[in-house]
Amino acid sequence: MRSLLFIFFIVISASLQFCLVAAEVRNFKWEVGYFFWSPDCIENIVMGINGQFPGPTIRAKVGDTINIELTNKLVTEGVVIHWHGITQSGTPWSDGTASITQCVINPDETFVYSFNVNKAGTHFYHGHYGMQRSAGLYGSLIVELEDGKKEPFHYDGEFNLLLSDWWHKSIHELEVGLSSIPFRWVGEPQSLLINGKGQYNCSLAADYSNSSLGTCDLNQAEWQCKPQVLNVIPNKTYRLRIASATSLSSLNLAIGNHKMLVVEADGNYVQPFAVDDMDIYSGESYSVLITTDQNPSMNYWISIGVRGRLPKTPQGLTILNYLPNDASQLPVSPPPITPSWNDFNHSKSFSNKILALQGSPKPPISAARRIFLLNTQNLFNGYIKWSLNNVSLALPSTPYLGSIKYGLKGAYDDKSPPENFDSDYDIMKPPINPNSTQGNGVYTFALSSTVDVILQNANVLSGNVSEIHPWHLHGHDFWVLGYGEGKFNEKIDVEKFNLKNPPLRNTAVIFPYGWTAIRFVADNPGVWAFHCHIEPHLHMGMGVVFAEGVEHVGQIPNDTLRCGLTAKMLTTGQLP
Amino acid sequence: MRSLLFIFFIVISASLQFCLVAAEVRNFKWEVGYFFWSPDCIENIVMGINGQFPGPTIRAKVGDTINIELTNKLVTEGVVIHWHGITQSGTPWSDGTASITQCVINPDETFVYSFNVNKAGTHFYHGHYGMQRSAGLYGSLIVELEDGKKEPFHYDGEFNLLLSDWWHKSIHELEVGLSSIPFRWVGEPQSLLINGKGQYNCSLAADYSNSSLGTCDLNQAEWQCKPQVLNVIPNKTYRLRIASATSLSSLNLAIGNHKMLVVEADGNYVQPFAVDDMDIYSGESYSVLITTDQNPSMNYWISIGVRGRLPKTPQGLTILNYLPNDASQLPVSPPPITPSWNDFNHSKSFSNKILALQGSPKPPISAARRIFLLNTQNLFNGYIKWSLNNVSLALPSTPYLGSIKYGLKGAYDDKSPPENFDSDYDIMKPPINPNSTQGNGVYTFALSSTVDVILQNANVLSGNVSEIHPWHLHGHDFWVLGYGEGKFNEKIDVEKFNLKNPPLRNTAVIFPYGWTAIRFVADNPGVWAFHCHIEPHLHMGMGVVFAEGVEHVGQIPNDTLRCGLTAKMLTTGQLP
Repeated sequence: MRSLLFIFFIVISASLQFCLVAAEVRNFKWEVGYFFWSPDCIENIVMGINGQFPGPTIRAKVGDTINIELTNKLVTEGVVIHWHGITQSGTPWSDGTASITQCVINPDETFVYSFNVNKAGTHFYHGHYGMQRSAGLYGSLIVELEDGKKEPFHYDGEFNLLLSDWWHKSIHELEVGLSSIPFRWVGEPQSLLINGKGQYNCSLAADYSNSSLGTCDLNQAEWQCKPQVLNVIPNKTYRLRIASATSLSSLNLAIGNHKMLVVEADGNYVQPFAVDDMDIYSGESYSVLITTDQNPSMNYWISIGVRGRLPKTPQGLTILNYLPNDASQLPVSPPPITPSWNDFNHSKSFSNKILALQGSPKPPISAARRIFLLNTQNLFNGYIKWSLNNVSLALPSTPYLGSIKYGLKGAYDDKSPPENFDSDYDIMKPPINPNSTQGNGVYTFALSSTVDVILQNANVLSGNVSEIHPWHLHGHDFWVLGYGEGKFNEKIDVEKFNLKNPPLRNTAVIFPYGWTAIRFVADNPGVWAFHCHIEPHLHMGMGVVFAEGVEHVGQIPNDTLRCGLTAKMLTTGQLP
Repeated sequence: MRSLLFIFFIVISASLQFCLVAAEVRNFKWEVGYFFWSPDCIENIVMGINGQFPGPTIRAKVGDTINIELTNKLVTEGVVIHWHGITQSGTPWSDGTASITQCVINPDETFVYSFNVNKAGTHFYHGHYGMQRSAGLYGSLIVELEDGKKEPFHYDGEFNLLLSDWWHKSIHELEVGLSSIPFRWVGEPQSLLINGKGQYNCSLAADYSNSSLGTCDLNQAEWQCKPQVLNVIPNKTYRLRIASATSLSSLNLAIGNHKMLVVEADGNYVQPFAVDDMDIYSGESYSVLITTDQNPSMNYWISIGVRGRLPKTPQGLTILNYLPNDASQLPVSPPPITPSWNDFNHSKSFSNKILALQGSPKPPISAARRIFLLNTQNLFNGYIKWSLNNVSLALPSTPYLGSIKYGLKGAYDDKSPPENFDSDYDIMKPPINPNSTQGNGVYTFALSSTVDVILQNANVLSGNVSEIHPWHLHGHDFWVLGYGEGKFNEKIDVEKFNLKNPPLRNTAVIFPYGWTAIRFVADNPGVWAFHCHIEPHLHMGMGVVFAEGVEHVGQIPNDTLRCGLTAKMLTTGQLP
C-alpha cells in the first residue's frame, strides 16, 4: 500500500511538473489609441493597439495564462476589450464587457486583463464599448493545443484571416445617427477588410469586370492596405483560421478552384465537410483545410462578399499565391461570385452541415428552463430600437457583476425580464404595436442548470423584411439544437432537436422569419452578455444579460468596480 | 446700550432678509450629447447640451447659487464643464477642469456643479477635457448686478454675442494630428460662428466681393446657421456682451459706421474708451456700448475676422438691423475690413487702452514671488509640444485637488517646476536645443500672498515666427501690469509696471516676441489651471498648475475623486 502511494505521488509530481513546464504566462503591454491609418487605401483614424491595426495577434497554448496590461491612451474615451471565445472561467471580471463585467478603463489608466485559455481554438478580441469595434479595435487570438497533443486533422502550414468591415465616417457620427429622430442608418460599409487590409479606390479584379475603379498595383500599393498574399507551396495542406469581427456584414468566403474542408467552428471540432464557399457571420470563427492541388503555374483568388443584405460594398480580395509564381500574377478568371445576398437556402444548407465531430461533448437530454426571445424592431420614444420580448436593452451605469455580487439596490431592474412573448404575435408582419420598453433586467439561472434559448426572428418595423442576426454568448459555448422556419412550435419542434451531434458554438445565426434553438449549461459563475453581434444592433438594444452563481464569484478586483454604485459602495468602505 | 443692541439686531435681520430674498438658487438639468447640427450650413455632429448648440445661456444675479445637474449622454467619452470667469471661491471642485479639479463625469453618470456667482460680468462656460470645446461644448454665462444696483453706464437693451470657430473634421482627428509624427496641424477653421451660426457655403456679403460663394438668402437659410440679426431701435444705446470661446482664432470685431465704447473686460469695469474695431482673444469677454445714431433707413454689418494668423477663414457676419427696416436689406457698403492679420501695433494699441475704471481695486504694490514663464515650442520624443521653462504640461490621471489635499504620493511630480529660464536664452531665435521635458509639477503659493507672473514669448521651433497666446487663469482675476517688447528686463521693466489703474482680467495676451506681466493675490484655496486658451496649444502642453491653501479646502465631494489614486484611497476607506 505504501509503495503504491509512493508511485502515485511520483506520477502526480511528474504530471504537475509537466504542467508547470508546459503552461506559460504570457505578458503583453498594450496601449489603445487612435492613429492615422489607411485600412482601405483611404486615410482615416483607426483605434488600434501599440500603433498597429488590427491589434497584435495573440498566440497561446492551452493552459496558458494571458496577462494584458492595457493602458488607455485615448484622449477622452473609456475602453474595454472582450476576449471573444474565451470562457473566463474563474475570472468573469476579465470578460471585457462595459456595464456588464467591469467599469471602463478611463484615459491614462491601466487595467490588467488576466485569464486562462483552457481550450484550443480560433478566437479574436475586440472593443465592447459603444461602437469601438467599428472604429478598428480588434485582433486575433489563437489558442493552440498543448505541446504533444495533436489536432484530429493534418496540415502543413496555417494562415490567419481576420475579416472586418470599414466605414469612412467616424463611429461617433455612426452612433449619433442610430440615436437620432429621424433615425439614420449607418449605411453599408465602404470596404471589406482581410487582416485589416482592403482597397476602396482600386480593385485587384478591375480588369475582369466593368468596374469604374482602376487596377490596384500590388507592388505599388501603400503597405497599410496592400493585401496580405497567402504564399503556398503546391501539394500541401493549409489550415485557414477565419474569424469575422465585422460590425455589420455577413460574409461569404470562397477560394477560386479550391474546395475547403471545414474542421473547426468557434473553437470546437466539427465533422469535416467540404464546401466551395462558406458563410461566416459576425462573431463566428472557423478553420478550414485547403489542399494546394490545383495547376501550380497559376494563382487563385480568395474573396469575401456580403450576404444577407443587399450588398453595396465591393468584394474583399487577396491572392492564394502558388510559389514560386509572382504574387502579382493575377488568376486567369474573375474572382468567385458571392452567392446572391438573399439566397438564404444556400446559407441554411451550410449551417445545417455543421455538426459536432464524433466524440464531442453531448448536450444534456433536457433543459431545466426554456426561454423564448422574440427579436423585434420597435420604437421607444420615437427612436428605433431592437427588442427582445418587447424589451430593448439599455445598459446600466453600474456593471452587473459588482452590483449583483454585492446586492446593490437600484443598479438595474430587479424584475426578471419576460421569458416569452404573446402566442398571437405574427412574426410575418410588422409589429401591430410598434412601441417597446427599455430595460436592463437579468435572466438568472440556477448554477449548473441546463438552459434552452429559442431565438425567434420576426418582421422588422415596416415593410416585409426580416434580417439575419448572429447571436453571441459570453462565458459559454452552447449546442445548436436546430434551425427552423416560421414560428417555433414547442410541441413539434422540440422533438426535432438534434441531441445526437449538435455543434458547440459561441455564436449562432437566426435566419429571416426563422428560429434557432440553443442549449447550454449555466456552469460559469458570472454575468454574461448574450447579444446580436452586429454592433449597431447591440447599440440599439439587441441583447440580454444572463447571470449564474454570482455568489461563487471570487474577489472582484476593485479596479473593475470604480464607477456607478459600486464606486459609491467602495467609498463607504463597507464591503458586504 | 440695550436699545442700541436691539436696533443693531433689527438692522442685521433686515439685511439678512434682503439677502435671502435677493439671492436665488438657480437649478438646471443638462444632458451633454452629440447630435447632428449645421453650425455653418454644413451638417456635422456637434457636442451640445439638451439638444441645443451652443448650450443654453445661463443668466443669474450676483449672489445666486447655480446648480447644474449634468448628465453625460456621450456614448464613450467622459466630460467636464468649466465656468470661465467664475472664481469658485469655496467650491474649487466645481471649476470643471479634468485632471485638475475633478475626475471626469463618465457616460450615463451625473454630477452636480454647484457654485456661487459673486461678481457681475459677461462670462461663458465650456468643455475642459481633450478638445471638447472645439467640438462645440460651450455657452454663455451672464451675471447681472443685484436688484437695485446700477451699472456705471446706461443702456436701453443688450445683446449677447458668443464667438467661436469651427472645423469640419472631428476633434478626434484633430487630436490625433497633434499627437502624430510627423505632426499635423489642425489647420485654420472652416468657419467663424456668432452665437453658433456661420455660413460656409455662401456669404452674406457675396455681392460686395469677388467671392466665388453665392449669396446667403437670409430668409431661406437653414435656421441652424441663419445669422442672428440684432434688431435695434434708432437712437438708443445697446450693450453688446461679447465673449470668445474660439479654439484657435484671435478675432477682430467691428460694426459698420458705429463706434463701440468698451466698458467691461472679463467681468471687470474698465475706463470707457471708444474704438472702431476691437480685438478679442480666446478666453476674453467684453461689454461695449453702441448708440444707434446712424442713418436709420439703413442696416449695418457686424463682422468678425481673424487676427494674428494668416487668415484662411472667411469673416463671420451678421446684421445690425435698424427697425423697422427689413433684416434682409443689406448695408450699402461691404463689411468692415478686418485689420491686417499681422498689424500687431493695432492690437497692442487696443490692449493698452484697457485700464481699470476709477475706484476699481488696486494691486498690492509689490509681490512676494515673481515667476517667469518662457513660452517655447519644442520637441518631446519627436512630438511637437509647447513648453514653459522647457516643461510641457502632461496632466496626471489623478486630479490635483484631491491628491494635494490628501497628500497622495506619486500622483504628480512633487518637485516644483522651474521659476525662471536661462538668462542667455535668445527669444528671437528658434531654441538651440529643441528638446523639452514633460512634467506635471505644481507652483504652490503661500495663501494670500501676492504673485507676479512674467509671461515671456519667444520664437517657435523653426522659422522666424512668434505666435499670440492668450493666457487664462482659473480661480482668480489678475491685474495686467504691462506689456512689453522683447525680453523682460527686471531692472527696467518692473519700474514701468502700471500700479495705478491696471485692468483686472482673467485672460491676458502675450504678443509675438513680447512679454506680459500680471499680478494676483493667491487668496482662493484650491488648484488652478493657468494656460494658453488656444485649445490645441493647451493640448500640446501649454499650461501650468497653481495651488494655494489646499489645506483650507472644505470636504471635496467624493464624486470628483473617483478616479486614479484618489479612487484607490477612497476604496481603502482611509480618508486622511
